[in-house]
Amino acid sequence: MLTLEHAQKIVAAALAASREKGLKPMGIVVLDARGALRAAAVEDGASLERWRVAYGKARGAISLGVSSRMIEKMAQDRPYFIGALGSVLTEGIVPVPGGVLIRDPAGAVIGAAGASGDTSDNDEAALLTALGAAGLAS
Amino acid sequence: MLTLEHAQKIVAAALAASREKGLKPMGIVVLDARGALRAAAVEDGASLERWRVAYGKARGAISLGVSSRMIEKMAQDRPYFIGALGSVLTEGIVPVPGGVLIRDPAGAVIGAAGASGDTSDNDEAALLTALGAAGLAS
Amino acid sequence: MLTLEHAQKIVAAALAASREKGLKPMGIVVLDARGALRAAAVEDGASLERWRVAYGKARGAISLGVSSRMIEKMAQDRPYFIGALGSVLTEGIVPVPGGVLIRDPAGAVIGAAGASGDTSDNDEAALLTALGAAGLAS
Amino acid sequence: MLTLEHAQKIVAAALAASREKGLKPMGIVVLDARGALRAAAVEDGASLERWRVAYGKARGAISLGVSSRMIEKMAQDRPYFIGALGSVLTEGIVPVPGGVLIRDPAGAVIGAAGASGDTSDNDEAALLTALGAAGLAS
Repeated sequence: MLTLEHAQKIVAAALAASREKGLKPMGIVVLDARGALRAAAVEDGASLERWRVAYGKARGAISLGVSSRMIEKMAQDRPYFIGALGSVLTEGIVPVPGGVLIRDPAGAVIGAAGASGDTSDNDEAALLTALGAAGLAS
Repeated sequence: MLTLEHAQKIVAAALAASREKGLKPMGIVVLDARGALRAAAVEDGASLERWRVAYGKARGAISLGVSSRMIEKMAQDRPYFIGALGSVLTEGIVPVPGGVLIRDPAGAVIGAAGASGDTSDNDEAALLTALGAAGLAS
Repeated sequence: MLTLEHAQKIVAAALAASREKGLKPMGIVVLDARGALRAAAVEDGASLERWRVAYGKARGAISLGVSSRMIEKMAQDRPYFIGALGSVLTEGIVPVPGGVLIRDPAGAVIGAAGASGDTSDNDEAALLTALGAAGLAS
Repeated sequence: MLTLEHAQKIVAAALAASREKGLKPMGIVVLDARGALRAAAVEDGASLERWRVAYGKARGAISLGVSSRMIEKMAQDRPYFIGALGSVLTEGIVPVPGGVLIRDPAGAVIGAAGASGDTSDNDEAALLTALGAAGLAS
């Protein structure tokens, strides 16, 4: 089960990874297995809705049980599917990399994290580094 | 201008104040002057939508420029007014105490904080303690 | 028919009336007979969603063909009616004074204006002064 | 910080630029850094929802921190991304040229302006001319 301590570690480690690489102002959001927001941080200079993009990446991952990188592949294969999903899910999703599942050491999904600010690939890389630093996996 | 450092201090101090008083699992959300989420933390054991209640208190405060305690008074005086506002504002509001404006030492509004978890009065008290600890006011 | 010139005169005259009385930072919105926004101004220091409250007062007036002061009376008499209207109208309404119809010299409704910032009564008074200054009526 | 005076200058200068070029009836909307509407004008003859298209261009720019011309490029590269964003942002966006950031002389983003009425390129050109006339940049 994802704890607040986990969530705060992931946020702190993702910001650290982003700053070490010199990425643009970043928004980081961590959700638990229910999709509930547990911790978030948005850096100075981030655009107005940056946090919602990060949230949408994480929300898509936990909603469908795959990374938002995988959801991007689904969107490329069947754009009408991902386009229409927004009208049936509780909340919208953001189908580009930067949303990852969070798994405990036994492999169980305990939440999802989202990042937005730099390129989608860099956003995702910061999260994967952070999960490792927190002793978790994706 | 509210920085991430301000926002994280407020979140940490509000959780500390809540734990010192033995309050129920708490959700804390800090928005900047744009209404953008900047930091959040939700304790273990909090209910599914706890963070949204905290968000809605803070959102109401920054949307209307008064504390959610004042919005509660407006709702008691003219329930049809506050009831209808939800249909015109960008997002809904939660008209009970626990959402406070954040002012810098010069008195300018630089954001809003919301707390939800215990009684509305206790939620608000934790935030006011936190603002003081962060060198800010309401 | 309401012209942009009418709409800009009403906005300018309402701000002038508000400043002469020393009212709080004001948002003014003017809609034409179709409910389309034609002119708006929001003063420095107004809260985040001030313009939407002004818009909602004007929108209610043009939607129902009466002033928002009259809609407040309807809300006091039958709160369930005004409460439910928000779910069927295209957009929400704000049922307190400060939204007035705009009539040409022949008495035809050509639009609606909304103001928000000070007390509802003062908001409305600024608009009525402005309509007179623009050679129009409510 | 964007003032009402800035916003009104931009609206007036954009209308002047549009009229000098003989463009179709134009809607102009100016938002501050919070995404809050600060000034707007919609010319006689503009279609019913013209102001919302202008608003959506400006809203997209301030939400994502880039011009709506750049958002159009993102939509061409990854249509599923921009298509899905509408489901997670607070409000929808209009991903074609005619929405520009407003920067102060020091380069800080202080708002966004949107125009709609003629071709997207002409809409954008009127705004860029207006920003220059107001001593601001994009």
